[in-house]
Amino acid sequence: MPVNLPLPIAEKLLPVAGVRLGTAEAAIRKLGRRDLTLIELAPGSRAAGVFTQNRFCAAPVTVCKEHLMAGPIRALVINTGIANAGTGELGIANARASCDAVAATLGVSAPEVLPFSTGVILEHLPVDRLVAGLPAAKAALKADGWFDACHAIMTTDTQPKCASRQIQLGGKTVTLTGMSKGAGMIRPNMATMLGFLATDAAVAQSLLEQLVREAADLSFNSITVDGDTSTNDSFILIATGASGAPEITDATSADYKVLREAVVNLSVWLAQAIVRDGEGATKFMSIAIEGGKSREECRQVAYAVAHSPLVKTAFFASDPNLGRILAAIGYAGVMDLDVSRLRVWLGDGKEEVLVAEKGGRADSYAEEAGARIMESAEITVRADLARGDASATVWTCDFSYDYVKINADYRS
Amino acid sequence: MPVNLPLPIAEKLLPVAGVRLGTAEAAIRKLGRRDLTLIELAPGSRAAGVFTQNRFCAAPVTVCKEHLMAGPIRALVINTGIANAGTGELGIANARASCDAVAATLGVSAPEVLPFSTGVILEHLPVDRLVAGLPAAKAALKADGWFDACHAIMTTDTQPKCASRQIQLGGKTVTLTGMSKGAGMIRPNMATMLGFLATDAAVAQSLLEQLVREAADLSFNSITVDGDTSTNDSFILIATGASGAPEITDATSADYKVLREAVVNLSVWLAQAIVRDGEGATKFMSIAIEGGKSREECRQVAYAVAHSPLVKTAFFASDPNLGRILAAIGYAGVMDLDVSRLRVWLGDGKEEVLVAEKGGRADSYAEEAGARIMESAEITVRADLARGDASATVWTCDFSYDYVKINADYRS
Repeated sequence: MPVNLPLPIAEKLLPVAGVRLGTAEAAIRKLGRRDLTLIELAPGSRAAGVFTQNRFCAAPVTVCKEHLMAGPIRALVINTGIANAGTGELGIANARASCDAVAATLGVSAPEVLPFSTGVILEHLPVDRLVAGLPAAKAALKADGWFDACHAIMTTDTQPKCASRQIQLGGKTVTLTGMSKGAGMIRPNMATMLGFLATDAAVAQSLLEQLVREAADLSFNSITVDGDTSTNDSFILIATGASGAPEITDATSADYKVLREAVVNLSVWLAQAIVRDGEGATKFMSIAIEGGKSREECRQVAYAVAHSPLVKTAFFASDPNLGRILAAIGYAGVMDLDVSRLRVWLGDGKEEVLVAEKGGRADSYAEEAGARIMESAEITVRADLARGDASATVWTCDFSYDYVKINADYRS
Repeated sequence: MPVNLPLPIAEKLLPVAGVRLGTAEAAIRKLGRRDLTLIELAPGSRAAGVFTQNRFCAAPVTVCKEHLMAGPIRALVINTGIANAGTGELGIANARASCDAVAATLGVSAPEVLPFSTGVILEHLPVDRLVAGLPAAKAALKADGWFDACHAIMTTDTQPKCASRQIQLGGKTVTLTGMSKGAGMIRPNMATMLGFLATDAAVAQSLLEQLVREAADLSFNSITVDGDTSTNDSFILIATGASGAPEITDATSADYKVLREAVVNLSVWLAQAIVRDGEGATKFMSIAIEGGKSREECRQVAYAVAHSPLVKTAFFASDPNLGRILAAIGYAGVMDLDVSRLRVWLGDGKEEVLVAEKGGRADSYAEEAGARIMESAEITVRADLARGDASATVWTCDFSYDYVKINADYRS
C-alpha cells in the first residue's frame, strides 16, 4: 500500500502540446501486458537528461547519452520486462536496433530516438518483438496518452505515478506533465527508476540542461528506498516550445524562475511518488538536515540516517528510537561534528518536538510525544548541525517485513 | 541460530598468566543476570586499544582513550545493560566514578582502570549499583574466569564468543585468549561490539599499539552486520608478559611475526563470531575483492556489496542474483572501473564458479551451479577488478525476516 499516493485520474493529466504518447503489448517478457511505450515529440522540441552513475550502466543509458550529445530528439521508446543491463556489446547493438526501428516507424533519424529499458538485468532484449509492437504503439499515439503511458512503464510498482501542473509565462498558459516509475532502486528482477517530464514551454538547450540537473538534484537524487543505485536510472526533461510562450534563454529571468519552480515542484512530486510506493513501505520519511558547512555534508548526514536499517526498522515499528538516529548522524563521516551542539527534532506536520540536544536526550523530551509522532504515516526528522548555513532534505521510506519478503522471493 | 559458531567449552579456554577475571550480578538494568565483569592485570602488563569512530562515542570510550594515554593499565570493568552513550557530561562523570571505585577495590589508581559499557543508549549508568557489585566481582577473580566473563559481557548475543590459541616464543609457551560480544552494530536497545584479547607474551608498548591497529583492521574493522557503527565499539589487546618469553621489541623479528599471526588469527575468529551470531543471520558471507588499485578501494567495493540490502536478501533467499552483486560493485564509487574487465565468482569452499565477465553473465555460467552454491551456509563472493594488486576481504551475514523482527520489536 503506497503511503499517501493518489491514483492518477485520466482527466487531470493534461496533454502537453507537441507530445503524443502511445502504448502497445509487445510480449517483451510476458504475454498480455502493455510493455511498450512510444513518445513522439514535435519538431523543434528539446530534451535533456541525467542518468545513473552506476558503472554497470545499461546499454540504453549509453545510447541515450550519445544521442542527446548528437542533437535534437524526436522520439522516446520505453520497454518494460528486460532492462538490457549487464548485456555487453550485444546489449548496445540491441538498443541501437530499437532506435533504428523507431526511426523508420516515425520517419525520423535513429540518433533522434532515446531508448529506455526496465526489467530483468543480464538478459537480452528481444528486439524483434519490440519492433513488431511498434506499429500498434504508433497507431495509439495521442496527446492525452499520459494515462496509458504511466501504466505501461510500470514494472512491479503497485500503482502508476503521473501528475500535471500549469503556469503562466509571457501571457501564455504553459503545461507540465510528468510520470515516473520504480519502487526499489532495483527490484528482485525489475530494475530502474525512470522519470519523464514534458512541458510545452520553450527553453534554450543549455538552460534545459542546467534545469534537468538542478531538478534531479532536488528530487530524484534526493530519494532512497534501499540505497541501491540502479543500472538504468534516467530522468528526461522535454521542452516542446509548442505553447507559444516566448523562449527562455536567461537563467536570471522571471520566466525561468517560474518554470524552474514548477519543474522542481513536479520533479519532487514524481520522485516522492517512488518513495511512497517503495518496496514494503508503510511510512514516508523526510530527513531534513540544516546548519551544515555545505549541502554535500548535509546530504551525507541525511543519507546516513535514511539508509540505516536500524532507523528504518524503528520507523516501521513506530518506535521513537533516538539512539539509532543519533548514532547514524554520528557515523555519517562528518569527523569534526560537535555533538554537544547538535539538535534533533521529530515532527509529523502537525507538531514538532525537540528530542536531542547537548549530546543526549533533550530534558524537555517526553517519550509519549515521540511515540505519538511516530504513529503518523509521514514523519520528518530534522537535525541542526550548528556549524554552517547549508541544508538538504532526503526522502525515504521505512523497512518492513514486506521489503524482505519482496526481495527474498525468488525471481519469478 | 548462529552460522557455524561453536559454543565455548570451559576446559578449552586457556588462562593467560597475569590475567584474572570475575563476574557479578549488579542489577544494572535487570535483576538476576551477570552484568558486571572485572578483569585484573598483573603489574607490568601493557594494553592498547582501538575505538569507534562514531562522533557520538560513549563516555567510557572517551575515558578509555584518556587512561590509555596516561600510562599502564591494571584493570578493566565491563557492564552490560546501560551503554552510557549519549549521556553528556554526567556520563563522563559516571564513567570516572566507576574507575574510582574499581581502583579503590583493587588497590590501584583510577587512571589504571579502563571502563566499558554496553546496553541501552541515552540512559544514565547507575554507578551506585555498579559499585555495590564490585566486591562480589573481586571475590570471583580467577585465572580461568574467561568462560564466566564471556557470558557476562553478552547482551542480546545468542551465544558467548571466546577462544584460545597457543604459540611458542623463545622456547616458552605463550597463550592468547580472547572474547567478543555484539550481534548487530546496534541492537534495538543494546549497543556495542566489544573485543578483548589477552596474551602473556611480553611486547613493547609501541609494538602493541601497532599490533592492535593491524589486527583490528583485518578483523573487527572488516565485518559488518547492518552497516551501523555503534557508539561504544572497543577492541583491547593486553600483553601481560607473564609467560616468561623474551620481550618483543622489533617488528621485523621472527617472534613478532609468530605473535602477530596468532593475534590476527584469533581476532578474525572473534570478529567473524559476531557476524555468525549477527541479527537474524542464516548465512555467513565472505566478500573478497582483489585486483584493486588500493586496499581502500577494495574495501569500498566489498562494503558496497556487503551492505546492499538487495544482495543480503538474495543470499537469505539462496538466490544467485548476479544482477544485484554486479549493480552493487557498479555503484561502489570506483568511478573509472572498467566493467568489461571485471570478473566475479561464487564459491562455497568446495567449488567456485565464474559467474560474470565482459560486462555481463559468463557464457560458461549455469544457474544450477550458482543455485547449488547459494544453498550453502557459508558463501564467498570473489571479484577481480583487474586494475591493480591490492585486495581486501569483508565478512557479513544475510538479511532475513528475523533481522526486521528483532529490530522492529519495541525496546523491551
